Amino acid sequence: MKLDVDLVPVQVPGFRFAGVRAGIKQSGKRDVGVICSDVPATAVAAFTSNRVKAAPVRVGIEKMAAERLQAIVINSGNANAYTGPDGLQMAHDMCALVGKQLGIDPALVIPSSTGRIGVPMPRRKVEQGVRQACREVAADGFHAALEAIMTTDAFPKFGVERLEIDGRVVTIAAMAKGAGMIAPRMRRVPPAKHATMLAYVMTDAAVSAAALRQILDRAQPRSFNAIVVDGDTSTNDTVVLMANGVAGNRPLTPAAAVKSGFSDAVARLMRSLARMIVLDGEGAHRVVDVEVRGAKSAADAERAADAIARSPLCKTAFHGSDPYMGRVICALGYSGAVFEPDAVDIYLEDLQVVRQGVEVVGKVEKKAHAILQRPELKLTIDLHAGQGRAERMMSDLGVEYVQFNADYRT
Amino acid sequence: MKLDVDLVPVQVPGFRFAGVRAGIKQSGKRDVGVICSDVPATAVAAFTSNRVKAAPVRVGIEKMAAERLQAIVINSGNANAYTGPDGLQMAHDMCALVGKQLGIDPALVIPSSTGRIGVPMPRRKVEQGVRQACREVAADGFHAALEAIMTTDAFPKFGVERLEIDGRVVTIAAMAKGAGMIAPRMRRVPPAKHATMLAYVMTDAAVSAAALRQILDRAQPRSFNAIVVDGDTSTNDTVVLMANGVAGNRPLTPAAAVKSGFSDAVARLMRSLARMIVLDGEGAHRVVDVEVRGAKSAADAERAADAIARSPLCKTAFHGSDPYMGRVICALGYSGAVFEPDAVDIYLEDLQVVRQGVEVVGKVEKKAHAILQRPELKLTIDLHAGQGRAERMMSDLGVEYVQFNADYRT
Repeated sequence: MKLDVDLVPVQVPGFRFAGVRAGIKQSGKRDVGVICSDVPATAVAAFTSNRVKAAPVRVGIEKMAAERLQAIVINSGNANAYTGPDGLQMAHDMCALVGKQLGIDPALVIPSSTGRIGVPMPRRKVEQGVRQACREVAADGFHAALEAIMTTDAFPKFGVERLEIDGRVVTIAAMAKGAGMIAPRMRRVPPAKHATMLAYVMTDAAVSAAALRQILDRAQPRSFNAIVVDGDTSTNDTVVLMANGVAGNRPLTPAAAVKSGFSDAVARLMRSLARMIVLDGEGAHRVVDVEVRGAKSAADAERAADAIARSPLCKTAFHGSDPYMGRVICALGYSGAVFEPDAVDIYLEDLQVVRQGVEVVGKVEKKAHAILQRPELKLTIDLHAGQGRAERMMSDLGVEYVQFNADYRT
Repeated sequence: MKLDVDLVPVQVPGFRFAGVRAGIKQSGKRDVGVICSDVPATAVAAFTSNRVKAAPVRVGIEKMAAERLQAIVINSGNANAYTGPDGLQMAHDMCALVGKQLGIDPALVIPSSTGRIGVPMPRRKVEQGVRQACREVAADGFHAALEAIMTTDAFPKFGVERLEIDGRVVTIAAMAKGAGMIAPRMRRVPPAKHATMLAYVMTDAAVSAAALRQILDRAQPRSFNAIVVDGDTSTNDTVVLMANGVAGNRPLTPAAAVKSGFSDAVARLMRSLARMIVLDGEGAHRVVDVEVRGAKSAADAERAADAIARSPLCKTAFHGSDPYMGRVICALGYSGAVFEPDAVDIYLEDLQVVRQGVEVVGKVEKKAHAILQRPELKLTIDLHAGQGRAERMMSDLGVEYVQFNADYRT
C-alpha cells in the first residue's frame, strides 16, 4: 500500500544528518547516509538473530556493548552481507572514515547496510559517498538521510514526538525503512534477550542506558519484532536508540522514563514505524492486527500468532477478503501451541466468527466479508488455555509480491 | 504444472474400488470413493501432526492401532474438520455404513475426507454416495476411486509396481491427491515417531506389520514428509499401506521385504507420488529438490532444508529463475541450524554457486540462470558442520497460487 506522506521538516537538537548519491544503487537515488550527534550519546541497539549476520551487524554488536554512540553511517543498494573478510573490513573502514571526517572516535560510530546479499561492496563509491555525506551533515538533513536508507520502500517512514521533561521540551524522532524480507527477530545489544528493516530513534533528552534498555525491551515485542511481511528474517535488521542529552534534563531513570511519558512516546513511535513497514509490505493491500490471547504460555501465544502471520493460505484469504476461518484454525493447529480446538473463539473486529470451536461465520458472512475489505483490521483469537498473549502485524499476500520478487535481479 | 497422464488400467488382486458422484462437490464431479479388500489386510498408516485433527483422522488413529484394515471410505469436497461432535459421529457412521453394505467388520474400516475446513458434512448426500459406492465396487474401479479423492488437483496421481516374490508376481498400486495446503508432517500409527494430501498404497503381497512399519518409517522422510508447496500443514493428511496377502507368498519380514526389493518398490512409489503432488502444487512452475548435507545433526539438516522450502523469497526467486543465492543463505541463517557461514558450499545441479561462504554465481550466472529455467532441478547445500542430511521437494511460488487461493470461496 502506498501512503501519502507529508514530509514535514524534522529536527532534533544536537543531531545532524545527510543523505547523498554515491552510485551504489543503479537507480541513481540517494544511497549513503550519515546520522551524527554533536556529543557522544547514550545508546542501545538490537540486531538480527539470523546466524548469517551482515558485516555491519557484526561490527555494531561489538561496538554497542559500550552503550555509547555518536554517529551511524548507512548505505543502501548493497547489504554487505555474506561478503567475507573484505566486507568486514569495509564496515570497519566506513566507521573509521566517518571518525576521521567528523573528528569522532571511530569506536563511537556504527555502520548499517541494506540491499542485495552476497555482492562485494563497491569500495570507492562507498568511500566517496561517506566523505560527501560527512561534508553535508546538517540539522535539516533528516529527510535526505531517510531517503538514503530506503530500498524497495514505496514511501518514507518517520515520526516525531515532543514532550516536556524537567520544564524542557524534548524531541524524539525516528526513521525506518523496510518492505520485504520482513520478519524481524532482533536481539538487544548489550545482550538480553527480525526486509531488512532499519530503524533509528534519536532524542535530545538525557536518558540513562538502563532506561533505554528497558524501553527497547518492552517496545520491541509490540513493534518491530511483531511484524511479518513474508516471514524471511533478514541478515541486516537493526534498531538503534540514541539519546544525546542536549536538552539538559536530569538523565531519565527507568522509572522516570515511564512516569514522564518518555517510554510511551518512544513505544508509540516504534509501533507506528513498524506498522508503516507492514503497510508498505511488498504487494500488500491490507494490514491485519493479529492478537492471540488465552494461550497456555507467552511462548505458545507467539507460536500461534506467528503461524497465522506467516501462513500463505491465511495471507491469500485475507488478500481475497475471504472469511475462511478454517485456514486460521489449521495454522493454529500446526503452530505447536497447546490448546483444545473445541474451546477456541475467533473474532474479526468485534464480530465473532468462531464460537467454542464451531465456525459461525456462515451466519455473518456478509459482515465478515465487509470487515475483510478494510485496509486495516483486527483478528483476535482466544485459545482459552491460559494467560499467554502475543500480537503480530501482518500483511496479506498479493500477486504483486510474487511479481516483484520473481524479478528482483533480472 | 499439468502432467499428461496415461490412465493405464490398474488392478490389484483382491482389491475392489469405486468412485461416485454424491453432489458434495459443487462441480458435480466424483466425490465419494471406497477402497476395499476381499479379506482383512495387514496395514499401517500415518496421519497429520496438526493439533486440529479432522474427524476422520481421529477415527483412523484409533482404529489403526490394531494394524488390520479391510476398507477405506473417502469423500472430497468437505474436510470434515473442525466440525465438532456431529462431524465425529459422521466419520464413524461412514465406516458403519460401509461395514453394513459390504459385510465387513466396521472396526476394519477407516474414513478419509478432504475439502473445506469448518463446514458441516451434508449427511444425506454422503450416505447416499457411500451406499452407491459400495454397490459399485469393482476390480477395475481404481481410476473412479482416484477421481473421487481429487480436489484442486490438475491431474491424477498414481503408480504401479510389480515384482516376483516366492515365485509369485505381486502388485503394488498407489494413488494420491494434493496440490495445496501441502507441508505434511505425518506420524505413523501405531505410534513411532505429517495439503491435505491423501495417499493409499495397496498390495496383494503378504507383508508382516513389522515390515510395513519399517517401510513407512523409512520412506516417509524422503517422500510425503519431504514435500512443501505452501508450508501449511493440513488437518487431514493421511497415508495408508494395505497388504492383503492374496498373492499367497510367505509373509514378508522386515529383512525379507528389503531383500526381495519390496521395500524399495513401495518407497519408489511413495516418492513418485509425493513428487507429483509438488509438480501439481497450486501455481507451481518448477520443482526444486533441496538436499542439505553436512549439517551438525539430522534435526539441523531438517531445519535448514525446511526453511528454504518454505521461504517466500527463495520460492519467488526460483519462480523467476533468479540465481539469487543470498536468499538461500539468508534462509539458512534464520533456520535455527548451527553452522559457520564461511564454510558453506552451494550447488545448482553440479554447478557450484557458493564456495566456502563466497557467492561465485557471478562468474557462472548464465549457466545458473539456465539451470533455474528447468522444470525440475537440484539445489545442494553442504554446511560442513557434521553428518546430518535431509531433503525437501519444493515448488516455486507463482502468481497463480495467490490468485487461486485468494479466490477459493467466493
